[in-house]
Amino acid sequence: MTWLQELENCITEGQVLTSLANRYSYSFDASFGEHLPEAVVKVKQKQEVVQVLKLANKHLIPVYPRGSGTCLSGGPLPVHGGIVLDLSQFPKKIDMRPEDLTVTVTPSVLTAKINDEAEKHGLMYAPDPSSAHVATIGGNLAENSGGPRGLKYGVTKDHVLGLEVVTPEGDVIRTGGQTIKNVTGYDLTKLIVGSEGTLGVIVEATLKLMPKPPAVQTMMIAFSNVRKAGEAISKTLTSGILPAKMEFMDQACIQAVENFQPIGLPVDAAAIIIVELDGHPEALQVERKIVEEIMNDMGAEDIIIPKTDKEAKDLWHARKQVSPAIAKIKPTKVSEDATVPRSKIPDFMDRLQAIKEKHKVEIVVFGHAGDGNLHPNILCDQRDAEEMKRAELAVEEMFEAALELGGTLSGEHGIGTMKAPFLELELGEVGVDMTKRIKDAWDPN
Amino acid sequence: MTWLQELENCITEGQVLTSLANRYSYSFDASFGEHLPEAVVKVKQKQEVVQVLKLANKHLIPVYPRGSGTCLSGGPLPVHGGIVLDLSQFPKKIDMRPEDLTVTVTPSVLTAKINDEAEKHGLMYAPDPSSAHVATIGGNLAENSGGPRGLKYGVTKDHVLGLEVVTPEGDVIRTGGQTIKNVTGYDLTKLIVGSEGTLGVIVEATLKLMPKPPAVQTMMIAFSNVRKAGEAISKTLTSGILPAKMEFMDQACIQAVENFQPIGLPVDAAAIIIVELDGHPEALQVERKIVEEIMNDMGAEDIIIPKTDKEAKDLWHARKQVSPAIAKIKPTKVSEDATVPRSKIPDFMDRLQAIKEKHKVEIVVFGHAGDGNLHPNILCDQRDAEEMKRAELAVEEMFEAALELGGTLSGEHGIGTMKAPFLELELGEVGVDMTKRIKDAWDPN
Repeated sequence: MTWLQELENCITEGQVLTSLANRYSYSFDASFGEHLPEAVVKVKQKQEVVQVLKLANKHLIPVYPRGSGTCLSGGPLPVHGGIVLDLSQFPKKIDMRPEDLTVTVTPSVLTAKINDEAEKHGLMYAPDPSSAHVATIGGNLAENSGGPRGLKYGVTKDHVLGLEVVTPEGDVIRTGGQTIKNVTGYDLTKLIVGSEGTLGVIVEATLKLMPKPPAVQTMMIAFSNVRKAGEAISKTLTSGILPAKMEFMDQACIQAVENFQPIGLPVDAAAIIIVELDGHPEALQVERKIVEEIMNDMGAEDIIIPKTDKEAKDLWHARKQVSPAIAKIKPTKVSEDATVPRSKIPDFMDRLQAIKEKHKVEIVVFGHAGDGNLHPNILCDQRDAEEMKRAELAVEEMFEAALELGGTLSGEHGIGTMKAPFLELELGEVGVDMTKRIKDAWDPN
Repeated sequence: MTWLQELENCITEGQVLTSLANRYSYSFDASFGEHLPEAVVKVKQKQEVVQVLKLANKHLIPVYPRGSGTCLSGGPLPVHGGIVLDLSQFPKKIDMRPEDLTVTVTPSVLTAKINDEAEKHGLMYAPDPSSAHVATIGGNLAENSGGPRGLKYGVTKDHVLGLEVVTPEGDVIRTGGQTIKNVTGYDLTKLIVGSEGTLGVIVEATLKLMPKPPAVQTMMIAFSNVRKAGEAISKTLTSGILPAKMEFMDQACIQAVENFQPIGLPVDAAAIIIVELDGHPEALQVERKIVEEIMNDMGAEDIIIPKTDKEAKDLWHARKQVSPAIAKIKPTKVSEDATVPRSKIPDFMDRLQAIKEKHKVEIVVFGHAGDGNLHPNILCDQRDAEEMKRAELAVEEMFEAALELGGTLSGEHGIGTMKAPFLELELGEVGVDMTKRIKDAWDPN
C-alpha cells in the first residue's frame, strides 16, 4: 500500500484531495512562489493531525501546515512536494475568559474575529496584521505576524501564553499555560511561534488580552521630503510618547491607493505618516499637541486631524488598501520587510532610493515605520526575465543595506522559502547550525 | 595534565579559585541548597568564557554560570561539582542608544543601573526584580526574572532584542539583533533567556527601552479579609485599568516588615494591596478614582494615598523589605512562586490557608498578585527534620493546587534545582522529552 492509499484509508472521505485542480489551488500563497503538493488533507480535529504526522513521519513525507494562504514569504508552499495540511476547516472555537484576560482559540479562527469578541468585554487582542480579516490565527502564530499596533504592543509572540502542538513525530504536547507569567522549563511556546510550521502543528493556543484603551486619536501628516518624514518619526519616538501605530506611505503608495479607491489622500506629498495615539481622552489631548509641535518643527506640509470616527476609519482603511492597490500596478509584487533600528530609518530610505536608481526598478515603500519595519515592494513582471534579474539584485542589496544598518531580513513576514538563501548572512554559520540542531532534534525524519 | 591544571594554564593567574574557602563561597545562593564546586573561574572577557567552555566540553566537566548569586531557585548551584563561572567580574558596559530606544550591556551590570542610566534620557528599562539593586542582568536573563512592573510591562524576556552567547561547545553566536521586530529564523533569543544557563553563557545583551511614564500614583489599600482583597484585585484588572504594579502582602508580612523596619503599615489589616498607576497626570486622576470606587465596593477598610514622593517611596521600600524581614522570623525560608490565572487568586489563597492548617506550617504570602504570581514562603528550620518534612509536603500540595487551578510551578524565580523534581507534573513526559532533545542537541557532552 502506498502512503497515499494509507492516508486515504485513515482520513474521512472527501478530506484528502489529490486531483490536479485541487492540488494546484494549494500550490501558491501571497508570495510569488509556486510548488505543487502530492496531496492536500483538510484536517478537522487534532486526532487527524496526529494521524497525518505519524504517517508522514513513517514514510518520510514532508508536511506543510497552512491556514488561509495569505503568507507573503512562501511559508506554506510545499517546496519538496508531500502533504499540505489545511487547518482552515478546524472547528472555530473562541473561548473567552475575560476575568483572566485570556482567550483560547483553534488555529482556523480569523485573527480579526478574536479582537471582535474581546471588544465585547472591553478588551483587546493587540496584534493586528493588515490581513487580520482574512488570515487565520494559526498562520499568524506560525509566522509570528506583526501589524501596525506592534509599535506599542509587540507582535503575535508577545501575546501567546500557551499552545497545544502536534510534534513532527505525531505526539501531542502542551507548552506554556494560562498564566501571564511562566518560567517553567524552556520556553517552547516562543520557540514554536514563528518557527513557520517546521517544529510542529499548532492545534490550540491561549492568548493574552488587555484592557481596550478608552480612546484613540488618529492624525495624518504630509511631508514634501521623505527623509524629513523619517526624521520626524525618530523625533516623535524619543519625545516620551509611544503611539499605538505610526505608519508610513511614500508618494507611489499614496497615488496607488487614490487610483484604486479614492479617499482624498494628498497625492502631491512625498510621503505621509499616519499616527494613532491611544489612552485616556485627557492624555490624548496632551500627546496630540506634542506630536503636532514635533511635526511642525520637522517641516510638515500639512497635519490632518479627522473630525469624525468615520474619517479616522477611512484613513486606516486607505492604509490597508496599499497592498491590493500596488498589486494592480504591475503583475508581480516582491514584498520585502527588512527592518532597521528606528534611528536608521532616514538612512535606510536613502539607501532604498539609491538601489532604485541603480537597478532601474520600481520600488514603493510603506510600512510600520515607527518600529523600523518598512515594506519596500518591488513592482515588476515575472514574465520579463531581465527585469526579474534586476529585481533580484535590488532585493539582495536591500538585505545587505538593512544588515549593514544593524537591521534584520524580516521584521514580521517570516523567512519562508523566499529569504531562506539569505539566512546565513544574518545568523552566521554557527547560528544556522544551532537552528538546524533544534530542527533535527525535534524532527529526525 | 588534569583538566584543572589545563584550566590554570589557560586562564590568567588569580582568576581560578580552588581553595576550599573560595569554593565554599560559591556553594550556595539565596535558595537553601548547598553544593561545592571543584573550581571557580572569575571570567573577565568573552575569550575566557570560550576557553573554559571548550576545555570543559573536552573533559566533560559541568559548568554553572553565575552572577551575584541572588537566585531563589538554586540555578547557579554546582549540583554535579565541576566549574562555577563567575561573570560578575566582567567589565561593566552600558551602551545606551536612546534614539533607537535600546541599550547593550554586559552580564555583570546590576539591573537597577540600567534603569538609572535609561532615566537620564527620559527612558525606562521596565523589568524591576525586587533584587535589581544587587542582582546582575546576566542572572536576570538566565532566569527570566519578573518583578512588580511585570503586571503591565512583562518580564525580562519581553525586553531582550538580541544576545551574544557562548555555546556549550565554546562557539560564539549572536541571536536576534537591535531591531524591535525580528522574525528571522528560530527565536534563539527567547529560548536562551530563561534557560537557566543550560544552553550557553550570555556575554552581551541588547535590551529594549521605553519612554518613562510622565507620572506615577501610588495607593495602599487595607482589607480585613484576605479573600476580599483577592477579589478586589480581579475586579480592578477587569475594569479596563492596567496598573503598573499591584502587590499583595498578608498580615504576617505586614507585621514582619513593621518589626524589621517600622514605617507605619496597618498591622491589624488581614492584607494590604499596594498599587502603582503610571501614565499622564490627567489620566492618573481618572484611574485613581476608579480604583478607589472598586476598592470601596469590595469592602476596603482603608485607602491610603501618599502625600509626597517620599511617602510613596517608603511604601515601595517596605514592599522590598518583605524578603529580608521574613528571613528574620525563622532560620529557613522556602520561597515559592507558583502562579495561577488572575481570576483564581482568591481560590489559591483559600487553598494556601488549608495547606497551612493541614501541615501546621508557618506560611506567609506576598507577591505580584496582579499577575497571579504569589510568593507563598514557608518559614521553618532546616535543623528540624520533622518540620522540614511537613514543609516539603506543603510545597508539594502548593504546586498541585497551582496546577489544578490552571497555573504553573514558577512565575518568575525559575525551576533551578529546587523545582526540577516537579517539572514533569507540569510539562508531561513528552514535554520533558522535547526539552531534553534541545539540551542534548546543543550540548551533546
